[in-house]
Amino acid sequence: MSIIAKYNARSDAANSLLCVGLDSQIEHLPESFRQNDLPQFSFNRWIIEQTAGYAAAFKANIAFYEARGTQGLHELQLTINYLRDRYPDIFTICDAKRADIGSTNQAYVQAIFDVMGFDAVTLHPYLGREALQPFLSRADKGCIVLCRTSNPGAGEFQDLQVSGKPLWLVVAERVSQEWNVNDNCMLVVGATYPDEMRQIRETVGDMTFLVPGIGAQGGDIQATMRAGLNKDGIGIIINASRSIIFARSPAETARSFRDDINAHR
Amino acid sequence: MSIIAKYNARSDAANSLLCVGLDSQIEHLPESFRQNDLPQFSFNRWIIEQTAGYAAAFKANIAFYEARGTQGLHELQLTINYLRDRYPDIFTICDAKRADIGSTNQAYVQAIFDVMGFDAVTLHPYLGREALQPFLSRADKGCIVLCRTSNPGAGEFQDLQVSGKPLWLVVAERVSQEWNVNDNCMLVVGATYPDEMRQIRETVGDMTFLVPGIGAQGGDIQATMRAGLNKDGIGIIINASRSIIFARSPAETARSFRDDINAHR
Repeated sequence: MSIIAKYNARSDAANSLLCVGLDSQIEHLPESFRQNDLPQFSFNRWIIEQTAGYAAAFKANIAFYEARGTQGLHELQLTINYLRDRYPDIFTICDAKRADIGSTNQAYVQAIFDVMGFDAVTLHPYLGREALQPFLSRADKGCIVLCRTSNPGAGEFQDLQVSGKPLWLVVAERVSQEWNVNDNCMLVVGATYPDEMRQIRETVGDMTFLVPGIGAQGGDIQATMRAGLNKDGIGIIINASRSIIFARSPAETARSFRDDINAHR
Repeated sequence: MSIIAKYNARSDAANSLLCVGLDSQIEHLPESFRQNDLPQFSFNRWIIEQTAGYAAAFKANIAFYEARGTQGLHELQLTINYLRDRYPDIFTICDAKRADIGSTNQAYVQAIFDVMGFDAVTLHPYLGREALQPFLSRADKGCIVLCRTSNPGAGEFQDLQVSGKPLWLVVAERVSQEWNVNDNCMLVVGATYPDEMRQIRETVGDMTFLVPGIGAQGGDIQATMRAGLNKDGIGIIINASRSIIFARSPAETARSFRDDINAHR
Protein backbone atom coordinates (compact mmCIF):
# COMPACT_ATOMS: atom_id res chain seq x y z
CA MET A 1 0.00 0.00 0.00
CA SER A 2 1.44 3.40 -0.94
CA ILE A 3 1.83 5.91 1.84
CA ILE A 4 -0.88 8.10 0.38
CA ALA A 5 -3.16 5.07 0.24
CA LYS A 6 -2.56 4.71 3.97
CA TYR A 7 -3.92 8.21 4.54
CA ASN A 8 -6.85 7.65 2.20
CA ALA A 9 -7.77 4.37 3.85
CA ARG A 10 -7.76 5.92 7.31
CA SER A 11 -9.67 8.92 6.04
CA ASP A 12 -12.36 6.60 4.68
CA ALA A 13 -12.50 4.48 7.82
CA ALA A 14 -12.82 7.46 10.16
CA ASN A 15 -14.91 9.51 7.72
CA SER A 16 -12.51 12.37 8.38
CA LEU A 17 -10.08 14.71 6.63
CA LEU A 18 -8.87 16.10 9.96
CA CYS A 19 -5.27 16.11 11.17
CA VAL A 20 -4.75 16.86 14.84
CA GLY A 21 -1.58 18.87 15.39
CA LEU A 22 0.35 17.90 18.51
CA ASP A 23 1.97 21.33 18.96
CA SER A 24 2.25 20.61 22.65
CA GLN A 25 4.21 23.65 23.75
CA ILE A 26 5.11 23.10 27.39
CA GLU A 27 4.15 26.61 28.53
CA HIS A 28 0.59 26.09 27.30
CA LEU A 29 -0.10 22.70 28.86
CA PRO A 30 -2.66 22.44 31.65
CA GLU A 31 -1.00 22.59 35.05
CA SER A 32 -1.93 18.96 35.83
CA PHE A 33 0.22 17.78 32.91
CA ARG A 34 3.06 20.18 33.58
CA GLN A 35 3.59 18.53 36.95
CA ASN A 36 3.97 15.10 35.34
CA ASP A 37 7.47 13.67 34.84
CA LEU A 38 6.62 13.31 31.14
CA PRO A 39 4.47 16.40 30.59
CA GLN A 40 4.43 16.46 26.79
CA PHE A 41 3.97 12.72 26.40
CA SER A 42 1.26 12.44 29.05
CA PHE A 43 -0.57 15.37 27.47
CA ASN A 44 -0.20 13.90 23.97
CA ARG A 45 -1.45 10.51 25.12
CA TRP A 46 -4.52 12.18 26.55
CA ILE A 47 -5.08 14.22 23.38
CA ILE A 48 -4.66 11.12 21.23
CA GLU A 49 -7.23 9.20 23.27
CA GLN A 50 -9.63 12.14 23.15
CA THR A 51 -9.34 12.80 19.42
CA ALA A 52 -8.23 9.61 17.63
CA GLY A 53 -11.78 8.70 16.70
CA TYR A 54 -12.05 11.87 14.63
CA ALA A 55 -8.50 11.96 13.26
CA ALA A 56 -7.27 10.78 9.87
CA ALA A 57 -3.79 11.94 10.83
CA PHE A 58 -1.66 13.28 13.66
CA LYS A 59 1.06 15.84 13.03
CA ALA A 60 3.77 16.76 15.52
CA ASN A 61 5.69 19.98 15.04
CA ILE A 62 9.12 18.96 16.26
CA ALA A 63 10.11 22.51 17.24
CA PHE A 64 7.96 22.38 20.38
CA TYR A 65 9.85 19.26 21.50
CA GLU A 66 13.32 20.51 20.53
CA ALA A 67 12.61 23.57 22.68
CA ARG A 68 12.95 21.26 25.72
CA GLY A 69 16.17 19.65 24.51
CA THR A 70 16.64 15.90 24.65
CA GLN A 71 13.82 15.48 27.19
CA GLY A 72 11.30 16.91 24.73
CA LEU A 73 12.56 14.70 21.93
CA HIS A 74 12.35 11.67 24.19
CA GLU A 75 8.70 12.52 24.82
CA LEU A 76 8.08 12.95 21.10
CA GLN A 77 9.55 9.49 20.56
CA LEU A 78 7.24 8.07 23.24
CA THR A 79 4.35 9.78 21.47
CA ILE A 80 5.08 8.30 18.07
CA ASN A 81 5.72 4.90 19.66
CA TYR A 82 2.31 5.15 21.31
CA LEU A 83 0.63 6.06 18.02
CA ARG A 84 2.31 3.24 16.13
CA ASP A 85 1.37 0.76 18.81
CA ARG A 86 -2.23 1.77 19.45
CA TYR A 87 -3.29 3.43 16.20
CA PRO A 88 -1.09 1.99 13.45
CA ASP A 89 -3.64 2.89 10.79
CA ILE A 90 -3.55 6.64 11.54
CA PHE A 91 -1.24 8.63 9.26
CA THR A 92 1.61 10.39 11.12
CA ILE A 93 3.46 13.52 10.00
CA CYS A 94 6.66 14.98 11.42
CA ASP A 95 6.36 18.71 10.75
CA ALA A 96 10.09 19.38 10.74
CA LYS A 97 10.52 21.49 7.58
CA ARG A 98 13.91 19.99 6.79
CA ALA A 99 16.17 20.17 3.73
CA ASP A 100 19.95 20.12 3.38
CA ILE A 101 22.37 18.79 0.76
CA GLY A 102 21.89 15.17 -0.23
CA SER A 103 24.44 13.48 2.03
CA THR A 104 23.00 15.33 5.03
CA ASN A 105 19.41 14.60 4.06
CA GLN A 106 20.28 10.93 4.33
CA ALA A 107 20.83 11.53 8.06
CA TYR A 108 17.48 13.33 8.37
CA VAL A 109 15.80 10.41 6.59
CA GLN A 110 17.29 8.11 9.19
CA ALA A 111 16.23 10.38 12.07
CA ILE A 112 12.65 11.03 11.04
CA PHE A 113 11.61 7.90 9.15
CA ASP A 114 13.73 5.16 10.69
CA VAL A 115 14.59 6.19 14.26
CA MET A 116 11.41 8.10 15.06
CA GLY A 117 9.19 6.19 12.66
CA PHE A 118 6.94 8.85 11.16
CA ASP A 119 5.03 8.16 7.93
CA ALA A 120 5.83 11.55 6.37
CA VAL A 121 7.88 14.73 6.81
CA THR A 122 7.54 18.35 5.67
CA LEU A 123 10.36 19.68 3.45
CA HIS A 124 11.66 23.02 2.12
CA PRO A 125 12.04 23.13 -1.68
CA TYR A 126 14.91 25.67 -1.90
CA LEU A 127 17.78 23.21 -2.51
CA GLY A 128 15.93 21.39 -5.29
CA ARG A 129 15.12 17.82 -6.20
CA GLU A 130 18.71 16.61 -6.40
CA ALA A 131 19.30 17.45 -2.74
CA LEU A 132 15.97 15.99 -1.60
CA GLN A 133 16.50 12.68 -3.40
CA PRO A 134 17.16 10.70 -0.16
CA PHE A 135 13.65 11.65 0.97
CA LEU A 136 12.02 11.24 -2.44
CA SER A 137 13.57 7.80 -2.91
CA ARG A 138 11.75 6.46 0.12
CA ALA A 139 8.68 5.17 -1.68
CA ASP A 140 7.34 3.88 1.64
CA LYS A 141 7.28 7.38 3.20
CA GLY A 142 5.65 10.72 2.42
CA CYS A 143 7.46 13.89 1.28
CA ILE A 144 5.33 16.96 1.95
CA VAL A 145 6.96 19.90 0.16
CA LEU A 146 6.28 23.51 1.20
CA CYS A 147 4.48 25.19 -1.67
CA ARG A 148 2.28 28.03 -0.36
CA THR A 149 2.77 28.46 3.37
CA SER A 150 0.06 29.78 5.68
CA ASN A 151 1.93 32.73 7.26
CA PRO A 152 0.96 36.37 6.49
CA GLY A 153 4.36 37.13 4.94
CA ALA A 154 4.48 33.99 2.80
CA GLY A 155 4.45 36.03 -0.39
CA GLU A 156 7.81 37.74 0.08
CA PHE A 157 9.55 35.11 -2.05
CA GLN A 158 6.68 32.75 -2.90
CA ASP A 159 4.80 35.44 -4.87
CA LEU A 160 7.80 36.47 -6.97
CA GLN A 161 6.93 36.14 -10.66
CA VAL A 162 8.94 33.61 -12.64
CA SER A 163 8.17 33.65 -16.38
CA GLY A 164 4.75 35.06 -15.67
CA LYS A 165 3.78 32.81 -12.80
CA PRO A 166 4.42 32.92 -9.06
CA LEU A 167 7.19 30.84 -7.51
CA TRP A 168 4.69 28.77 -5.49
CA LEU A 169 3.12 27.61 -8.76
CA VAL A 170 6.51 26.67 -10.18
CA VAL A 171 7.17 24.61 -7.04
CA ALA A 172 3.77 22.92 -7.47
CA GLU A 173 4.54 22.10 -11.12
CA ARG A 174 8.00 20.70 -10.45
CA VAL A 175 6.93 18.55 -7.54
CA SER A 176 3.85 17.17 -9.27
CA GLN A 177 5.41 16.67 -12.72
CA GLU A 178 9.02 15.77 -11.94
CA TRP A 179 9.64 14.85 -8.31
CA ASN A 180 6.71 12.54 -7.73
CA VAL A 181 7.97 9.43 -9.50
CA ASN A 182 7.35 7.28 -6.43
CA ASP A 183 3.86 8.72 -5.92
CA ASN A 184 4.88 9.77 -2.42
CA CYS A 185 4.88 13.58 -2.73
CA MET A 186 2.39 15.97 -1.20
CA LEU A 187 2.29 19.77 -0.92
CA VAL A 188 1.82 22.20 1.96
CA VAL A 189 -0.85 24.70 0.92
CA GLY A 190 -2.12 27.09 3.61
CA ALA A 191 -5.85 27.44 4.28
CA THR A 192 -5.22 31.18 4.55
CA TYR A 193 -4.73 31.36 0.75
CA PRO A 194 -7.75 29.68 -0.90
CA ASP A 195 -7.23 31.42 -4.29
CA GLU A 196 -3.72 30.05 -4.51
CA MET A 197 -4.99 26.65 -3.37
CA ARG A 198 -7.50 26.53 -6.23
CA GLN A 199 -4.80 27.31 -8.78
CA ILE A 200 -2.53 24.66 -7.30
CA ARG A 201 -5.35 22.10 -7.44
CA GLU A 202 -5.93 22.94 -11.12
CA THR A 203 -2.22 22.44 -11.80
CA VAL A 204 -1.36 19.27 -9.91
CA GLY A 205 -4.34 16.96 -10.46
CA ASP A 206 -5.15 14.64 -7.57
CA MET A 207 -2.09 15.22 -5.42
CA THR A 208 -2.70 15.41 -1.67
CA PHE A 209 -2.32 18.72 0.21
CA LEU A 210 -1.42 19.20 3.84
CA VAL A 211 -3.43 22.28 4.79
CA PRO A 212 -2.35 24.24 7.86
CA GLY A 213 -3.92 27.53 8.88
CA ILE A 214 -7.40 26.46 10.07
CA GLY A 215 -8.24 27.47 13.61
CA ALA A 216 -5.75 29.74 15.39
CA GLN A 217 -4.42 31.13 12.08
CA GLY A 218 -7.87 32.05 10.79
CA GLY A 219 -8.25 29.93 7.64
CA ASP A 220 -11.79 29.11 6.50
CA ILE A 221 -13.02 25.52 6.19
CA GLN A 222 -15.60 26.14 3.48
CA ALA A 223 -13.16 28.04 1.27
CA THR A 224 -10.54 25.34 1.82
CA MET A 225 -12.94 22.57 0.86
CA ARG A 226 -14.08 24.35 -2.29
CA ALA A 227 -10.53 25.07 -3.37
CA GLY A 228 -8.71 22.00 -2.20
CA LEU A 229 -10.71 18.82 -2.72
CA ASN A 230 -9.63 16.70 -5.66
CA LYS A 231 -12.03 15.10 -8.14
CA ASP A 232 -12.46 12.07 -5.87
CA GLY A 233 -13.58 14.31 -3.00
CA ILE A 234 -10.39 13.72 -1.02
CA GLY A 235 -6.75 14.85 -1.44
CA ILE A 236 -6.58 17.17 1.56
CA ILE A 237 -5.33 16.77 5.10
CA ILE A 238 -6.75 19.65 7.12
CA ASN A 239 -4.67 20.36 10.18
CA ALA A 240 -5.72 22.16 13.34
CA SER A 241 -3.36 22.26 16.29
CA ARG A 242 -3.71 24.80 19.09
CA SER A 243 -7.44 25.28 18.52
CA ILE A 244 -8.04 21.58 19.27
CA ILE A 245 -5.39 20.56 21.77
CA PHE A 246 -5.82 23.61 24.03
CA ALA A 247 -9.63 23.70 23.77
CA ARG A 248 -11.70 23.05 26.88
CA SER A 249 -12.81 19.79 25.30
CA PRO A 250 -10.35 18.53 22.68
CA ALA A 251 -12.69 15.62 21.86
CA GLU A 252 -15.69 17.85 21.23
CA THR A 253 -13.60 20.33 19.26
CA ALA A 254 -12.04 17.65 17.07
CA ARG A 255 -15.46 16.15 16.40
CA SER A 256 -16.81 19.57 15.55
CA PHE A 257 -13.93 20.27 13.13
CA ARG A 258 -14.43 16.90 11.48
CA ASP A 259 -18.15 17.49 11.10
CA ASP A 260 -17.69 21.06 9.81
CA ILE A 261 -15.26 19.73 7.23
CA ASN A 262 -17.60 16.92 6.22
CA ALA A 263 -20.52 19.36 5.89
CA HIS A 264 -18.67 20.86 2.91
CA ARG A 265 -17.73 17.61 1.16
CA MET B 1 30.00 43.10 20.96
CA SER B 2 27.85 42.12 17.98
CA ILE B 3 27.77 38.46 17.06
CA ILE B 4 29.63 39.16 13.83
CA ALA B 5 32.25 41.06 15.81
CA LYS B 6 32.72 37.89 17.85
CA TYR B 7 33.58 35.98 14.68
CA ASN B 8 35.85 38.75 13.41
CA ALA B 9 37.71 38.97 16.73
CA ARG B 10 38.33 35.25 16.83
CA SER B 11 39.34 35.26 13.18
CA ASP B 12 41.91 37.98 13.92
CA ALA B 13 43.21 36.26 17.04
CA ALA B 14 43.64 32.88 15.32
CA ASN B 15 44.66 34.38 11.98
CA SER B 16 42.09 32.09 10.42
CA LEU B 17 38.96 32.13 8.29
CA LEU B 18 38.44 28.40 8.78
CA CYS B 19 35.35 26.76 10.22
CA VAL B 20 35.70 23.12 11.23
CA GLY B 21 32.51 21.20 10.54
CA LEU B 22 31.63 18.62 13.18
CA ASP B 23 29.66 16.37 10.81
CA SER B 24 30.47 13.46 13.05
CA GLN B 25 28.40 10.77 11.38
CA ILE B 26 28.57 7.71 13.60
CA GLU B 27 29.21 5.24 10.76
CA HIS B 28 32.37 7.13 9.77
CA LEU B 29 33.98 7.47 13.21
CA PRO B 30 37.19 5.55 13.90
CA GLU B 31 36.49 2.24 15.65
CA SER B 32 38.17 3.42 18.86
CA PHE B 33 35.54 6.16 19.25
CA ARG B 34 32.63 4.00 18.18
CA GLN B 35 33.29 1.74 21.16
CA ASN B 36 33.05 4.69 23.58
CA ASP B 37 29.82 5.23 25.54
CA LEU B 38 29.72 8.73 24.08
CA PRO B 39 31.12 8.14 20.60
CA GLN B 40 30.16 11.43 18.95
CA PHE B 41 31.09 13.58 21.93
CA SER B 42 34.40 11.84 22.56
CA PHE B 43 35.27 12.15 18.87
CA ASN B 44 34.23 15.82 18.80
CA ARG B 45 36.26 16.59 21.90
CA TRP B 46 39.29 15.05 20.24
CA ILE B 47 38.66 16.96 16.99
CA ILE B 48 38.20 20.22 18.90
CA GLU B 49 41.49 19.75 20.76
CA GLN B 50 43.26 18.85 17.50
CA THR B 51 41.91 21.76 15.46
CA ALA B 52 40.90 24.62 17.78
CA GLY B 53 44.18 26.43 17.27
CA TYR B 54 43.37 26.79 13.57
CA ALA B 55 39.64 27.40 13.85
CA ALA B 56 37.76 30.68 13.79
CA ALA B 57 34.51 28.75 14.08
CA PHE B 58 33.02 25.33 14.67
CA LYS B 59 29.85 24.23 12.87
CA ALA B 60 27.78 21.21 13.83
CA ASN B 61 25.32 19.83 11.33
CA ILE B 62 22.53 18.69 13.64
CA ALA B 63 21.28 16.02 11.19
CA PHE B 64 24.17 13.71 12.07
CA TYR B 65 23.16 13.86 15.74
CA GLU B 66 19.40 13.57 15.14
CA ALA B 67 20.15 10.39 13.19
CA ARG B 68 21.00 8.76 16.55
CA GLY B 69 17.88 10.05 18.29
CA THR B 70 18.08 11.59 21.75
CA GLN B 71 21.48 10.02 22.43
CA GLY B 72 23.01 11.92 19.52
CA LEU B 73 21.42 15.18 20.60
CA HIS B 74 22.71 14.64 24.11
CA GLU B 75 26.21 14.29 22.70
CA LEU B 76 25.75 17.43 20.59
CA GLN B 77 24.76 19.26 23.78
CA LEU B 78 27.90 17.97 25.51
CA THR B 79 29.91 19.18 22.54
CA ILE B 80 28.55 22.72 22.60
CA ASN B 81 28.92 22.82 26.39
CA TYR B 82 32.55 21.82 25.97
CA LEU B 83 33.16 24.52 23.37
CA ARG B 84 31.50 27.21 25.46
CA ASP B 85 33.50 26.17 28.49
CA ARG B 86 36.94 25.73 26.92
CA TYR B 87 36.81 27.95 23.85
CA PRO B 88 34.23 30.67 24.53
CA ASP B 89 35.82 32.98 21.98
CA ILE B 90 35.32 30.56 19.07
CA PHE B 91 32.21 31.24 16.98
CA THR B 92 29.69 28.35 16.98
CA ILE B 93 27.15 27.56 14.27
CA CYS B 94 24.24 25.14 14.42
CA ASP B 95 23.75 24.03 10.83
CA ALA B 96 20.09 23.14 11.22
CA LYS B 97 18.52 24.85 8.17
CA ARG B 98 15.34 25.67 10.04
CA ALA B 99 12.35 27.89 9.19
CA ASP B 100 8.67 27.63 10.06
CA ILE B 101 5.88 30.12 10.76
CA GLY B 102 6.68 32.76 13.39
CA SER B 103 5.10 31.17 16.46
CA THR B 104 6.95 27.94 15.72
CA ASN B 105 10.24 29.67 15.02
CA GLN B 106 10.08 31.02 18.56
CA ALA B 107 10.42 27.41 19.73
CA TYR B 108 13.41 26.83 17.42
CA VAL B 109 15.02 30.01 18.79
CA GLN B 110 14.65 28.58 22.27
CA ALA B 111 16.03 25.18 21.20
CA ILE B 112 19.08 26.36 19.28
CA PHE B 113 20.08 29.62 20.94
CA ASP B 114 18.90 29.21 24.52
CA VAL B 115 18.84 25.49 25.34
CA MET B 116 21.78 24.41 23.19
CA GLY B 117 23.58 27.75 23.28
CA PHE B 118 24.88 28.17 19.73
CA ASP B 119 25.96 31.61 18.48
CA ALA B 120 24.26 31.26 15.10
CA VAL B 121 21.91 29.09 13.04
CA THR B 122 21.36 28.44 9.33
CA LEU B 123 17.88 29.29 7.97
CA HIS B 124 15.76 28.69 4.86
CA PRO B 125 14.37 31.89 3.28
CA TYR B 126 11.19 30.44 1.72
CA LEU B 127 8.70 31.66 4.36
CA GLY B 128 10.03 35.23 4.30
CA ARG B 129 11.13 37.81 6.84
CA GLU B 130 7.83 37.98 8.73
CA ALA B 131 8.12 34.30 9.67
CA LEU B 132 11.81 34.51 10.56
CA GLN B 133 11.37 37.53 12.82
CA PRO B 134 11.91 35.54 16.07
CA PHE B 135 15.40 34.67 14.81
CA LEU B 136 16.11 38.10 13.31
CA SER B 137 15.07 39.86 16.52
CA ARG B 138 17.80 38.12 18.47
CA ALA B 139 20.47 40.78 18.03
CA ASP B 140 22.82 38.70 20.19
CA LYS B 141 22.70 35.74 17.78
CA GLY B 142 23.53 35.13 14.12
CA CYS B 143 20.99 34.35 11.37
CA ILE B 144 22.69 32.68 8.41
CA VAL B 145 20.22 32.61 5.53
CA LEU B 146 20.55 30.13 2.64
CA CYS B 147 21.24 32.15 -0.50
CA ARG B 148 23.22 30.03 -2.99
CA THR B 149 23.67 26.52 -1.68
CA SER B 150 26.66 24.32 -2.58
CA ASN B 151 24.81 21.28 -4.01
CA PRO B 152 24.93 20.40 -7.74
CA GLY B 153 21.18 20.85 -8.16
CA ALA B 154 21.01 24.18 -6.29
CA GLY B 155 19.88 25.98 -9.42
CA GLU B 156 16.52 24.26 -9.83
CA PHE B 157 14.74 27.05 -7.97
CA GLN B 158 17.63 29.34 -7.01
CA ASP B 159 18.46 30.12 -10.66
CA LEU B 160 14.89 30.98 -11.66
CA GLN B 161 14.81 34.48 -13.13
CA VAL B 162 12.78 37.06 -11.23
CA SER B 163 12.52 40.43 -13.02
CA GLY B 164 15.75 39.70 -14.85
CA LYS B 165 17.78 38.39 -11.94
CA PRO B 166 18.13 35.00 -10.31
CA LEU B 167 16.23 34.16 -7.14
CA TRP B 168 19.47 33.77 -5.15
CA LEU B 169 20.30 37.41 -5.91
CA VAL B 170 16.86 38.55 -4.79
CA VAL B 171 17.38 36.67 -1.52
CA ALA B 172 20.77 38.37 -1.12
CA GLU B 173 19.21 41.79 -1.71
CA ARG B 174 16.33 41.31 0.68
CA VAL B 175 18.44 39.94 3.49
CA SER B 176 21.14 42.58 3.16
CA GLN B 177 18.85 45.57 2.57
CA GLU B 178 15.76 44.75 4.62
CA TRP B 179 16.25 41.90 7.08
CA ASN B 180 19.56 42.94 8.58
CA VAL B 181 18.42 45.73 10.89
CA ASN B 182 20.17 44.15 13.87
CA ASP B 183 23.38 43.60 11.92
CA ASN B 184 23.14 39.89 12.72
CA CYS B 185 22.45 38.40 9.28
CA MET B 186 24.85 36.36 7.18
CA LEU B 187 24.40 34.36 3.96
CA VAL B 188 25.21 30.81 2.93
CA VAL B 189 27.08 30.97 -0.38
CA GLY B 190 28.61 27.72 -1.67
CA ALA B 191 32.27 27.57 -2.68
CA THR B 192 31.14 25.50 -5.65
CA TYR B 193 29.64 28.65 -7.26
CA PRO B 194 32.37 31.35 -7.29
CA ASP B 195 30.72 33.41 -10.06
CA GLU B 196 27.53 33.68 -8.07
CA MET B 197 29.58 34.47 -4.96
CA ARG B 198 31.24 37.42 -6.71
CA GLN B 199 27.88 38.85 -7.74
CA ILE B 200 26.53 38.41 -4.22
CA ARG B 201 29.57 40.18 -2.78
CA GLU B 202 29.03 43.08 -5.19
CA THR B 203 25.42 43.31 -4.09
CA VAL B 204 25.61 43.01 -0.31
CA GLY B 205 28.66 45.02 0.70
CA ASP B 206 30.58 43.74 3.70
CA MET B 207 28.12 41.11 4.90
CA THR B 208 29.65 37.85 6.14
CA PHE B 209 29.24 34.61 4.14
CA LEU B 210 29.26 31.08 5.47
CA VAL B 211 30.94 29.14 2.67
CA PRO B 212 30.39 25.38 2.51
CA GLY B 213 31.63 23.21 -0.33
CA ILE B 214 35.42 23.25 0.18
CA GLY B 215 37.00 19.83 0.56
CA ALA B 216 34.72 16.84 -0.03
CA GLN B 217 32.36 18.83 -2.27
CA GLY B 218 35.16 20.09 -4.52
CA GLY B 219 35.03 23.88 -4.08
CA ASP B 220 38.24 25.81 -4.78
CA ILE B 221 39.91 27.94 -2.10
CA GLN B 222 41.56 30.43 -4.44
CA ALA B 223 38.36 31.09 -6.38
CA THR B 224 36.44 31.44 -3.11
CA MET B 225 38.90 33.96 -1.70
CA ARG B 226 38.88 36.06 -4.89
CA ALA B 227 35.11 36.08 -5.04
CA GLY B 228 34.18 36.19 -1.40
CA LEU B 229 36.45 38.46 0.63
CA ASN B 230 34.98 41.82 1.53
CA LYS B 231 36.88 45.12 1.26
CA ASP B 232 38.38 44.62 4.72
CA GLY B 233 39.82 41.26 3.68
CA ILE B 234 37.42 39.31 5.85
CA GLY B 235 33.67 38.57 5.64
CA ILE B 236 33.90 34.84 4.95
CA ILE B 237 33.71 31.75 7.10
CA ILE B 238 35.12 28.87 5.07
CA ASN B 239 33.82 25.54 6.25
CA ALA B 240 35.36 22.12 5.74
CA SER B 241 33.86 19.12 7.50
CA ARG B 242 34.53 15.55 6.37
CA SER B 243 37.84 16.43 4.73
CA ILE B 244 39.20 17.59 8.10
CA ILE B 245 37.52 15.45 10.73
CA PHE B 246 38.00 12.16 8.89
CA ALA B 247 41.55 12.95 7.71
CA ARG B 248 44.44 10.86 9.02
CA SER B 249 45.61 13.94 10.91
CA PRO B 250 42.80 16.41 11.57
CA ALA B 251 45.28 18.85 13.14
CA GLU B 252 47.61 18.84 10.13
CA THR B 253 44.70 19.06 7.72
CA ALA B 254 43.08 21.97 9.55
CA ARG B 255 46.41 23.80 9.68
CA SER B 256 46.90 23.16 5.98
CA PHE B 257 43.43 24.48 5.12
CA ARG B 258 44.00 27.57 7.25
CA ASP B 259 47.35 28.22 5.59
CA ASP B 260 46.00 27.62 2.07
CA ILE B 261 43.23 30.09 2.79
CA ASN B 262 45.65 32.67 4.19
CA ALA B 263 47.95 32.27 1.18
CA HIS B 264 45.18 33.89 -0.90
CA ARG B 265 44.35 36.78 1.45
